[in-house]
Amino acid sequence: MQVTIIIQKKTGVLDPEAQAIQQALYSLGFDDLQDVTVGKQITVEINTNDQERAKYRASKMCETLLANTVIESYKIETKEPS
Amino acid sequence: MQVTIIIQKKTGVLDPEAQAIQQALYSLGFDDLQDVTVGKQITVEINTNDQERAKYRASKMCETLLANTVIESYKIETKEPS
Repeated sequence: MQVTIIIQKKTGVLDPEAQAIQQALYSLGFDDLQDVTVGKQITVEINTNDQERAKYRASKMCETLLANTVIESYKIETKEPS
Repeated sequence: MQVTIIIQKKTGVLDPEAQAIQQALYSLGFDDLQDVTVGKQITVEINTNDQERAKYRASKMCETLLANTVIESYKIETKEPS
């Protein structure tokens, strides 16, 4: 089962990368943008057909390695194999 | 209108970050994983209600700044304001 993990900075945490992107886009003429945020998308193929188990394992991965839960939040989406 | 841009390495392009994540997860006991891919998710609030125009502007942003189209592909999703 394919699991998609989205990791984003929590609101209130300074995100210099997003600021740099917004400024660069602004100077290229995209001057009507608001709220640029940058996150990381990690997709993993987990060897199970149990959706709950896949989600549980993905959240364990986030807690132990992928996300810094002090400043980042994560979201997990599963996709049924087509 | 909120636009989500997903930028990923094209298939066939070496992705050392994804390999490092897969190996690190493996050594933490997640040994049943396949196909780890890492991408970037950028969300932008574009000041328009026209979905086609928002998509067009987002693709322009990708072409000019956000994505390296030689080795990366991008995907654009729009979300209706709720």
